[in-house]
Formats: sequence, structure tokens, C-alpha cells
Amino acid sequence: MEFTKKEQSFLDEYKKISHYMEASKLIAWDLRTKAPRKGIKQRSETLSYLSERLHQLQTSDRMKEFIDELRLSENPYIRRSIELVQREYDFHHKIPVEEFKAFVQFTSESESVWQEAKEKDDYSMFQPYLEKIVDYNILFADYWGYEGHIYNAHLKHYEPGMTVDTLDGVFPKLQKDLSRLIEQVKASSFKPQIDQITVQFPKEKQEAFALHVLDQMGYDFEAGRLDETVHPFAIGINPQDVRVTTNYDELDFRTAVFGTIHEGGHALYEQGFDPKLYGLPVCSATSMGIHESQSLFWENFIGRSKAFWNTNYSTFLTYAPESFKNLTPKEFYRAINEVKPSFIRIEADEMTYALHIMLRYEIEKGLLNGDLNVKDLPGIWNEKMKDYLGTEPSTAREGVLQDIHWAGGDFGYFPSYALGYMYGAQFKHTLEKEVNIEQAIEQNELKKIKEWLNKHIHKHGSMKEPLDLLKDVTGEGLNHQYLVEYLTNKYSDIYGISLS
Amino acid sequence: MEFTKKEQSFLDEYKKISHYMEASKLIAWDLRTKAPRKGIKQRSETLSYLSERLHQLQTSDRMKEFIDELRLSENPYIRRSIELVQREYDFHHKIPVEEFKAFVQFTSESESVWQEAKEKDDYSMFQPYLEKIVDYNILFADYWGYEGHIYNAHLKHYEPGMTVDTLDGVFPKLQKDLSRLIEQVKASSFKPQIDQITVQFPKEKQEAFALHVLDQMGYDFEAGRLDETVHPFAIGINPQDVRVTTNYDELDFRTAVFGTIHEGGHALYEQGFDPKLYGLPVCSATSMGIHESQSLFWENFIGRSKAFWNTNYSTFLTYAPESFKNLTPKEFYRAINEVKPSFIRIEADEMTYALHIMLRYEIEKGLLNGDLNVKDLPGIWNEKMKDYLGTEPSTAREGVLQDIHWAGGDFGYFPSYALGYMYGAQFKHTLEKEVNIEQAIEQNELKKIKEWLNKHIHKHGSMKEPLDLLKDVTGEGLNHQYLVEYLTNKYSDIYGISLS
Repeated sequence: MEFTKKEQSFLDEYKKISHYMEASKLIAWDLRTKAPRKGIKQRSETLSYLSERLHQLQTSDRMKEFIDELRLSENPYIRRSIELVQREYDFHHKIPVEEFKAFVQFTSESESVWQEAKEKDDYSMFQPYLEKIVDYNILFADYWGYEGHIYNAHLKHYEPGMTVDTLDGVFPKLQKDLSRLIEQVKASSFKPQIDQITVQFPKEKQEAFALHVLDQMGYDFEAGRLDETVHPFAIGINPQDVRVTTNYDELDFRTAVFGTIHEGGHALYEQGFDPKLYGLPVCSATSMGIHESQSLFWENFIGRSKAFWNTNYSTFLTYAPESFKNLTPKEFYRAINEVKPSFIRIEADEMTYALHIMLRYEIEKGLLNGDLNVKDLPGIWNEKMKDYLGTEPSTAREGVLQDIHWAGGDFGYFPSYALGYMYGAQFKHTLEKEVNIEQAIEQNELKKIKEWLNKHIHKHGSMKEPLDLLKDVTGEGLNHQYLVEYLTNKYSDIYGISLS
Repeated sequence: MEFTKKEQSFLDEYKKISHYMEASKLIAWDLRTKAPRKGIKQRSETLSYLSERLHQLQTSDRMKEFIDELRLSENPYIRRSIELVQREYDFHHKIPVEEFKAFVQFTSESESVWQEAKEKDDYSMFQPYLEKIVDYNILFADYWGYEGHIYNAHLKHYEPGMTVDTLDGVFPKLQKDLSRLIEQVKASSFKPQIDQITVQFPKEKQEAFALHVLDQMGYDFEAGRLDETVHPFAIGINPQDVRVTTNYDELDFRTAVFGTIHEGGHALYEQGFDPKLYGLPVCSATSMGIHESQSLFWENFIGRSKAFWNTNYSTFLTYAPESFKNLTPKEFYRAINEVKPSFIRIEADEMTYALHIMLRYEIEKGLLNGDLNVKDLPGIWNEKMKDYLGTEPSTAREGVLQDIHWAGGDFGYFPSYALGYMYGAQFKHTLEKEVNIEQAIEQNELKKIKEWLNKHIHKHGSMKEPLDLLKDVTGEGLNHQYLVEYLTNKYSDIYGISLS
């Protein structure tokens, strides 16, 4: 690509930012995978110094000049890059430095209080912290400014272009549909043979199979690697070093296998950015929701599909303990797709997952606009659980205290999980018109699927806003029906009933 | 420790430097252990950006002010820290920035030419590059200034306080003694059973044994870890994260086992810095020679000792292949200590290693003061090899082209390897007066040895100049006789002759 002198000096300035991001991400990866305990304290100080430097560059007068001078650049890559850089600039600039610092410091305190409160199952310990965090989030929304609902001020940082109006037009329908399907599944007499798949399965064998699947997916091991962590994640340290981690449970191989496929889906997105975007701010994921659409696509639509296990079960058996031979591919497939409403979001199955998200969305919205009070949360939580999932936890630990997000100060992130699921189903619907997914899986040609995703989604990086990307690929806006249709068909088959 | 306001702001400034060093070291570790191939190019750019920032801080006017204002501080830790910081400042400041940049760029080109020249066994390819590197080194010496021999200008960066006069007073004697001992060993009729120990030995088992030995040495795994690399190294990312790497040769376990002990010795030094030095420039190794004294101490005086294998052979057998059971501890001990002059420095045994170093030292000295010509090196090399080791290589690849140091621009580093060996033997001689080394090994109390080294050497960091440290610990200056005495006794026993 050709750039003007001014554009080139903007990119040189951005290069500094990306150096700090790259160093910080490597430190983050190392802290979560390899770093010895005693070295962590000093490393964290280094990380926070680098973040400070990064922040200075993102909010400098020099950056402001670039924004002003290049916002109308003729080069669409520069124009869009300037938009992204401006978002960061505004995010930080509209909040007085000292207040933001105090907030960051407070959240680290609040995270540790939350940890203790969760252990002790004592919501009252955490309550005053959550109150202050809500206050901060209301204050920041005012600094940032917003149209319509106050929640929009936060939502846009994770899902640009998405609004409460749109979500409120879709979520209640999705909630109704899911709750109805779950009721029908509950009434079914079929019980999956879970005890047959939750047996001792050596870590090394799980790892070998996980590596095999990543390879089949087209994950590039020359531009990434797989490691072990407590909490699995994918991280693009640079566009050609996109690492995946997973967690092994020797009594439940699903954690590692589906976790790896999920993170692998994230990684394919970042490995798939068009090389011509390298070095530009647009060489990044366009939203958390689109990111999640890629991980859920692979985890659920491929990894938990009937075609996948019909094709790969015999290979899987070469890694799995002997006892798996007692299961037919179909029995196995039905077992890994058990629907079982649980209290815990991260343990939720395909059918119930989005309900956990919508519950949190409703609460976040209510806290920010003053409809709900922090002190009433445990009760509200349980009510909604009963309403959405037909079950309620008896402890705060399994209820309102389960996630770290609020303790860390994050409001507006949760919807992306459910959006990603719907986006994914919409992409799948379009993909099906061009590629026979089942056949690709059966012929061990997952790369055909990857290439389609590369071409239509990955390569664009942040060149398109999430909803524009969705529109360009699928021809329509957010639509929950594809997800509901997918679940209806899949679980009618699994549970041997005709869901409707 | 209490600091004045000025001292504290110096330490705050130094903290920035240490953040950049920490990030750079983690990147360096990752590049050599884990980084996927395709991500390396961009990571290297990030590394070089961080080095540039580091360099700016080390050579800033602000740093110069601290140096001027705090050089006479009443706090000895600050005073010494300022000395160290000034060394860095002078190192970089005395050379015009553009010339140094050109040099750094040239060395990266020269390294890749050297690589190719080595592969093609073609010295003439590399010769013009080496000529220019010698010119740079002569020029830099003039910029830096020196007393006596021009080589002193380079030597001091690796071994402060050491001079050509001192080396020339010791190296020729050491060379004569070693050459004499080697001649006698060659004449011995005993032949170690090398073929019995160079057998297939699975990597996992080697690793398990290496970890066992590191643990026995008192290496703190909560402040470090062991990984695999092509070229083994130890790196102190921060004083509580000092990592070790090793290389596995499944047909020669010595590479990994003695390599790990060697790097473990380096790591114990950096893990052993007094916590009160944390955050100060003096929290660092005082010289390359002292660093090497610690690695060679553990590798040779402990790891290759008779007492160690008498005590640990039965444990070793639980990791080693069955066939090792055919060897008695004594036969095994004699095999791992074979003396065999070879062309290659990094494959050299205890008896011949220092000769490889002295040969390089003589050549470096001659090139810098003009006594030798780059074009004549292959001939000079072979002559000296014959003279010192009684053998000469038939290729440049196994001769003058074998090391990367000169291609990378480094002159003055090599002596530290031989110095470390002599220092180590001097420390051992002193240690023996206070701790019964053999008994400590036999009672599996290697930690007694580690604690002595901690107390007398490690904890001081850079508070003492290397020769002062040597004097404080041993009561004398550099003395080659302890090393000669050690080798005479050990190899008389191994070869069943009376060396003299």
C-alpha cells in the first residue's frame, strides 16, 4: 500500500503503540502460563509501566493531530484506522486522568474482595464495592456521552454500533424461544450417558487429540502454539503469533477438547487477518461479538456436530481410554450434547448459555439506569434464574458472585457472548448456501470452512463495523431465528422428540 | 534502606530502565524457547524498539545529572550503583550515535555472512567483514580511551579491573601447565568406555533427572523454570524469575545433564542476590568471569566429581537405560571425564577448555594492536592449535570460523571463560577450608555448598569489583595454580597415572 508522508508518520507513531501492546501481551501470556510465582510481583510492575507508556501514546497531542489531519484521508485503510485510534483517544481522554487511575486501582482492590466474598459466600462483603463500581460506570458514561439508554455508552466499547434498542428487540424473543425449548427437552424421557464419558482420560492423550483437531481446523502452528493454563484463552501477541491455551480435567475430557476448539476458533480469526493490514490499527478484531462468533462457531457448530463425531470418533478412540469403545458414535454425540440447566454460566450447554447472558444484561442495564439496586441483586438474580432456567442457586457463590466481570469494573461486555452465538448461527446459515458443511466435515476438509470464514470475515480485521460485516455476509441484521432453528433441529434429533 | 529524595528519584528513573530490561529479557527468552517462527520478525522489531528506549534512558541528560550529583553519595549502595550506571553511560556516550548504529547494523549483516561462510567452509567470504569489525573495535577503543594495551578498552566491559598485564602474567603459565598435563594423559594406556555411555536415553528421562539435580542444588523452582532450547542458557528476567534452559541429545545424555547443572550454577548466582539489592543497579552479576565461575563450579567441581557419582549413581540408574547397569560408578565417572583434545571449543573437556580460550585471547589482542592480520588468521589459528593442543583442524569451519562472537562484534569476552574457571578453583580451595565438600555431596547436602556461595559471592551482586570479591573471599589475586592442582589430582586418579 502507498501512503502519504503524513500517513506514514502516523503509522510510525502507531508502530510504537503496537510495540508496547506486543510486549504487554507476551507478558500477559507468560504470567498466565509459565511465570514462576515469586517473579510475578516485579513483572506486574513492569506490565503496568508499559501500559502507562501505551496510554500516553494513545492519548498524546501528537495522536490528536494525526486524528484531526487524517480523518478525511483518501486511503480507506487510514480513514478507518483513524476512527479506531480516535475511539481509544476518546475513551481515555474524556475521563480525567486521576479519576481513571483511581478507578483502576479500586478495581484491583475490588477483585480481591470479590474473591474473598465468593469463597465465603458473603454477598454483603462485596456489595459496597459493587455499588462504587456502578457509580463509576454511571459517571464514565456521562463523561463519554451517549444517545438513548445509558448502557449504550458501555456497550459500544465491546460491540460498536450495537444499541439497547436492538438488543431489546431481539433478546426477549430469544429468551422466550430458548426457555420453551428447554422445557420440552426437560420433559423428554431420554437421558444421555454422561457417566460413560466422564472417566479418567490422561492429560497427554487429551493434549494429543486437541493438537490433532487444531491441525485439522487449519490452525497454523508456525504462527502459534498450545499451552496449558487454569483459564483457557487465545491471544494474538502479533498477527503471526496467535497462541492458544487450554485446561485439562482428567475426569472430563470435554473441558480440554471443546475448550481448545473454542480458543482455536478465536485464533483462526486473528491468524486470518489480511497481511496487507499488518502494522495498521485495523489489523484487529472488529468486536468481541464477532470474535465470539468464531469461537462458538467452531466449538458448537463443528466440534459438537454429529458429522464431526461420525467422522472422527474412530480417530478419537485411538486417544481415548478403552471404555469409550462401549459407546457408539451416536451415543457419544448425544452424551456430549446433554442439555442441563445449571447455575454456572461457564458450565452451561448450548441451549442454556444465552439465557445466562441475558440475565446479566438485564441486571447491568437496570443498575446503570437506576431501575435496580445493588443491594437487591441476590434476590433479583434468583428470580430471573427461576424465570429463565427454571432453577435457582442456594448460594451467592453459585449465583450473583460467580463472575469476575463486575468486580473488575466491566459493564457492557456480557451481551457479546450471546451476540456472538447469534452472529455465528447467521454466518453458518449463509455458509451452508455455498459450502456443504456436513460433507466438508465428513471428507476431513475443515479447511474449506476455514477458508470461507477467512475470506468473508477474518481477513477484513476491523475494516468493517460488526453490524456492517454481518449485513455484508448474511444480507441482514441481527436475527435470533437462525440460532433457534439450529438448536431446534439439533436437539430434536438428540432427544428424539419434535421440538417446536 | 533509607534514601534521600534525590537518591529516590534516581531509583525511580532506574526503575524505568529495569522495566525495559525485564520486558526485553522475557522477549529474548521467548524467542529462544517458545516463539513460533512466523511471529519472530515483528517481535524482533519490538525488541529493537525497546532497546532503543532503554538506551535513551541510559544515556539521557537526566541520567548524567544523577551521576554528577550522586557520585559522592554517603550511601555505599547508591555510590556503587552510580558507578555502574556511569559505565553504561560512558559506554554509549563516548561513541557517536550514528557510528554505533551503523556498527550494530553491520554486525547483524556480518553474522549472517559468517553463518554462510561457516556452512560453505569459506573463510575468504567472512574475511572482509571481520576486517571491518576489527576496525570498528579499534575505533571504539579510541573513543572509550584506555591505559596500557588497547585490548584493555574491551576487556573492562566484561571483566572490570582485569588487564592485559594480569592476563599475560597468568595465561602463559596456565597454558604451559595444561599442555604438559595433556601430553601425559595422552600417553596413558587407559581408555574410558565412552561407547557405554553414549547410548539412546529418552529425553523425558533425562529431563526428569536434570530436574532432580537442579532441585538438589537448591535451585528455587518458585523463582525459575527449566525449558528446552537449541543453545542452553540461564537468564535472570528479574531476580525472582531466573530461568534455565537445556538441550537434549538422546544419544549423549551429558549434553543435557551437565548443561543443566552449568546453567543452574549461573541461575543460583542470580537467585542469590540479596533482596535488599532488588531495584538497585547493583542487583546484577559483577562480571562475566564471576558468573562463569559459578556455572563451572557446579558443572565440574560438583557435577563431574567422583563423590557426586558415588552418591548419585544409583539414583541416576532409576532414570537411565538398563545398559548403564553394566558400568560401575567408577567406570561411569571415568567415562564422563574423558580428556580428548578436539577442534571445537564448546565440546572441549575440563583439561583442554582453557587452551581454546587462550588461543582466542592471543588472536584478539594481536588483531587489535596490529600484530596480526585478519587475512592470516586461518594459518595462525592452526599453528596455535598444534602448539597448544597438539592437533589441528583441516577446515575453517572447525577452526577459525567456529564461534559467533567475532561476527557479532564481540572482542574481549573470551577471557572471562578461562578466568571463571580459575576463579572457581580458587573459590573451591577456600570453601574446602570451611565445608567438607565431599562429605556434603555424600550426605546429599549440596545446599551447604550453595549457602556458602550465597553468603560469600552471590548475595553481593555487583557491590564488589570481581577482583576485590576474589581477594575478599580467597585472600589473593588471580592464581592459576588451584585449577592446575585440581586437574592434576583429579586426572591422576582417573587415568591411573601420577600427573606432574
